[in-house]
Amino acid sequence: QGQAEAPADSSRIKLSGYVQALFQKASAPGIESFSGGGFEENVDQRFTVRRGRMKLTYDAGSSSAVVQIDATEQGVIIRDAYIHFTEEKWNTFGLQAGVQNRAFGHEVAYSSSRRESPERSRLFQTLFSGERDAGAKLIIAPPAESQLGFFRLEAGFYNGSGTISDYDNNKDFIGRLHTAFEGRTAPWSLGLGASFYSGGQRQNTRYSYEMTSDDGFTLDSAESNIGQTAKRRYYGADIQAGYDFSFGNSEIRAEYITGKQPGSSTSSRTPRSRPEEDTYHREFEGAYAIFVQELGKSPLEVFIKYDFYDPNKKVNSNGLDESFTEGDIRFQTWGYGLAWKYDEHITFTAYYEDVKNEQTTLSGFTEDISDNVLSLRIQYRF
Amino acid sequence: QGQAEAPADSSRIKLSGYVQALFQKASAPGIESFSGGGFEENVDQRFTVRRGRMKLTYDAGSSSAVVQIDATEQGVIIRDAYIHFTEEKWNTFGLQAGVQNRAFGHEVAYSSSRRESPERSRLFQTLFSGERDAGAKLIIAPPAESQLGFFRLEAGFYNGSGTISDYDNNKDFIGRLHTAFEGRTAPWSLGLGASFYSGGQRQNTRYSYEMTSDDGFTLDSAESNIGQTAKRRYYGADIQAGYDFSFGNSEIRAEYITGKQPGSSTSSRTPRSRPEEDTYHREFEGAYAIFVQELGKSPLEVFIKYDFYDPNKKVNSNGLDESFTEGDIRFQTWGYGLAWKYDEHITFTAYYEDVKNEQTTLSGFTEDISDNVLSLRIQYRF
Amino acid sequence: QGQAEAPADSSRIKLSGYVQALFQKASAPGIESFSGGGFEENVDQRFTVRRGRMKLTYDAGSSSAVVQIDATEQGVIIRDAYIHFTEEKWNTFGLQAGVQNRAFGHEVAYSSSRRESPERSRLFQTLFSGERDAGAKLIIAPPAESQLGFFRLEAGFYNGSGTISDYDNNKDFIGRLHTAFEGRTAPWSLGLGASFYSGGQRQNTRYSYEMTSDDGFTLDSAESNIGQTAKRRYYGADIQAGYDFSFGNSEIRAEYITGKQPGSSTSSRTPRSRPEEDTYHREFEGAYAIFVQELGKSPLEVFIKYDFYDPNKKVNSNGLDESFTEGDIRFQTWGYGLAWKYDEHITFTAYYEDVKNEQTTLSGFTEDISDNVLSLRIQYRF
Repeated sequence: QGQAEAPADSSRIKLSGYVQALFQKASAPGIESFSGGGFEENVDQRFTVRRGRMKLTYDAGSSSAVVQIDATEQGVIIRDAYIHFTEEKWNTFGLQAGVQNRAFGHEVAYSSSRRESPERSRLFQTLFSGERDAGAKLIIAPPAESQLGFFRLEAGFYNGSGTISDYDNNKDFIGRLHTAFEGRTAPWSLGLGASFYSGGQRQNTRYSYEMTSDDGFTLDSAESNIGQTAKRRYYGADIQAGYDFSFGNSEIRAEYITGKQPGSSTSSRTPRSRPEEDTYHREFEGAYAIFVQELGKSPLEVFIKYDFYDPNKKVNSNGLDESFTEGDIRFQTWGYGLAWKYDEHITFTAYYEDVKNEQTTLSGFTEDISDNVLSLRIQYRF
Repeated sequence: QGQAEAPADSSRIKLSGYVQALFQKASAPGIESFSGGGFEENVDQRFTVRRGRMKLTYDAGSSSAVVQIDATEQGVIIRDAYIHFTEEKWNTFGLQAGVQNRAFGHEVAYSSSRRESPERSRLFQTLFSGERDAGAKLIIAPPAESQLGFFRLEAGFYNGSGTISDYDNNKDFIGRLHTAFEGRTAPWSLGLGASFYSGGQRQNTRYSYEMTSDDGFTLDSAESNIGQTAKRRYYGADIQAGYDFSFGNSEIRAEYITGKQPGSSTSSRTPRSRPEEDTYHREFEGAYAIFVQELGKSPLEVFIKYDFYDPNKKVNSNGLDESFTEGDIRFQTWGYGLAWKYDEHITFTAYYEDVKNEQTTLSGFTEDISDNVLSLRIQYRF
Repeated sequence: QGQAEAPADSSRIKLSGYVQALFQKASAPGIESFSGGGFEENVDQRFTVRRGRMKLTYDAGSSSAVVQIDATEQGVIIRDAYIHFTEEKWNTFGLQAGVQNRAFGHEVAYSSSRRESPERSRLFQTLFSGERDAGAKLIIAPPAESQLGFFRLEAGFYNGSGTISDYDNNKDFIGRLHTAFEGRTAPWSLGLGASFYSGGQRQNTRYSYEMTSDDGFTLDSAESNIGQTAKRRYYGADIQAGYDFSFGNSEIRAEYITGKQPGSSTSSRTPRSRPEEDTYHREFEGAYAIFVQELGKSPLEVFIKYDFYDPNKKVNSNGLDESFTEGDIRFQTWGYGLAWKYDEHITFTAYYEDVKNEQTTLSGFTEDISDNVLSLRIQYRF
């Protein structure tokens, strides 16, 4: 009587998910970390379920819907709730709307159940907190078997604030072009992508700091700054390349992003609530590269990942004095990993991250702070 | 070893759900709204997943259980968790217990995936916040094929506070009688319903204001008022009628409710937490009517909805001066919608709501405030 | 494109769950209670969905994963998110990692859908708040058909803090040995278990109170106490016995635990957030016994449960004066229940708990306080 009588065909329903049980040991207690979030005060070792996913997909062929939640000891939260459909004439033009991954670069949308490193790069965690956002995108992706099948274009608008109620009126544009090629006579694959982000966030105070020279920030305190849009603009390029050697498959993936990111005095993270602080405009750059080598026919693979994120390109280590903050410090991370694919569902991973900040004359950052993390993980994917 | 070994028969399990991706544009930033909740400060446009439902039904014929959650960027919350069973002798008497829709009127229990307007009327959002409540009801519904198959009676007790821990000792009675008829020789259908609500909430201060005349509220400040029950009493009538014309199916649904509703000085909404404010007793009335017209054999339908809610019947526009508040203002809404049923799962809806408050001598409400909303929605139901 | 392509075989996916709709009447309003949580101010009767479980199991034979959530009007929370696998050579050694039940005693891991009493004993609710914790355990359990099939050993490490982020560095060891026997010629069964817990929590103030004699607590206020580990150490024994008499199956289950538990001045509950209060070291003991009698071939069974928890063994009723608090009071509960197994899914339960505190010279506890609870429950399990 008015209840949803689902016209569901049960063969179209797919339940999937994955669980990641994790033990971590940090080099010092209570550290800030991008390896699964900061450690609590006095804590340098912890058990956690990093991800506990339950994903419901209804796939009707040309259209589908996804609801995915994440259940961990941090709470039960939404991951995805979106609708996808593709027109049936050319099978090329699609629309995807709802809470979904932001289509910028490669690592954002690459599933955490397939990524070798337990977490995304510092770069992406800073710019795209939580990866997801509410929005709608157009997808132009000719069918794989067509001549243009190597090509995929995505362009859409999003709140920009992530999976919370939007806190300002700016809707952010994200565009991404990706091409993928495969060898016909040799076992290689190549992917190339370019991404663009153009958005902003409302300035809620009159104090707007612009990094104009490497001497520091210049303050503009015009009353009219209130309500102005602080620009977010990112330019990204990414590459994925693989070759199936006789000694095991080799893969390399790399990504570079540069642009402008508004923030507060102490952080360039995209805010998770309405920003009430004064606005600091910085130009940033960041990148990562990961190299993955399967060890012959064994179920083992080793991988090395390097990433860096420099929130403020215009000032270097020597210039970083007390007029700056931790929000201006460049970090780089070397990660060393070993994965054992125990069976089709279970993967054991050991991963050590050596995190280095630049050494400055800013107190607290005159030396490399202790913030390395060892992660031991079991993942079950189904 | 002690874990629930589910005696489940997998053919009895049904997963269903729906996702509503929504873009909205308000006529002014930061407005209060019943069109999916108020807009954040400075915000007049937003993307949101309004509803992201995952519903698990176990249906064993004469008994069933439902657990339904809603995953959106606002959080993951319960929608339903109830048990239903019907005796097998007459197949007429049933019991439903748990968190479920309140059986009052038609729109409360009518699924959001089938309702044409994106939201329920202001009337229902005010009286039955979140629609659901914890309780138990008896259902008397003779089988469809019996002579009394047109008849359905539901009567039960509920906390009255919605899907939170109950904040007082009053359990609220809700009763509803509904009859449904169909034409045998002509394609018409008719439903008629009557509903009754008798409950209350505890007064937690000694100050009790009664609207005795159109001059305003009379204060009773007896110490003994603390702990008294402020009456909630609603009387409702509803009608649903349809006719399948050659130019497309026409449908009209309408509902009227009047009664007494306790509230605070500024609101007549049923509180979502223990009410600590002084109690204001008001007599209210409200109604809606929606007309839906399918456009021939096309997948399009147009619909018009009108609703009003007058929280305080005893005072009219002229009388509304500074001794009253926004909690006494009458609102009416005209909504104009177009729906396109793209396929069996996807519906596109465009809906514009023109919201009018009465014009009073109360400051802030001397004119119609700007609070209209345009909604563009894609729904996927499965 | 990078999304989890689930290698899932749908026949391996199992959805199960249960819903418990509950009405309760307390002997006094606003009481503290272990019968589903305290009653809100002024409230002595309530409807609630005590548990609304949705459990997703992927079972690939030698390995499996579970994600289980609980949806009630209190929120949607994680219950389980773990990975289990057993080596395939001896089919004896297994590992289970993630958020899971703590393997201590019998009642902790015994499913709430099978337990006759609506809640676990006060003892377990105090020591193992929420039952679950994040950790990893080794399981040695020879296959049922082997000579050692009666034997099961579990040993693992856990955060110790329950399903929240760990608030200190101590990882707690839990070990459990359980044996189970069945009659070959007579319909009896017997289970015997022994459990050990060795863990602790960080002391965050310098004030450490030790219960050294029955005169009261002795204060140690050395600065060096900060950062020391306050010991949690539990020793437990449990028995389960059953005999299928001609007049119906009889079952008895009992458990006893003693040990040391750190707490605050007013409570010995394992804290659900970083403990900032001074530390009180107490020796406790507690136990329960439940007797369940099926009534012949009828779907009815009666049961009686007794439990007690004495948080501070070293002081008795006479000694409990104003130098102690409610955190030192011994409670015992007699519970009387009747269950009606309506069908394979539905069970009706009526359960009355008579809760008695010891009578002391501490104000508020000079007499038995009124805190009895009647519970009427419908459960649907699937």
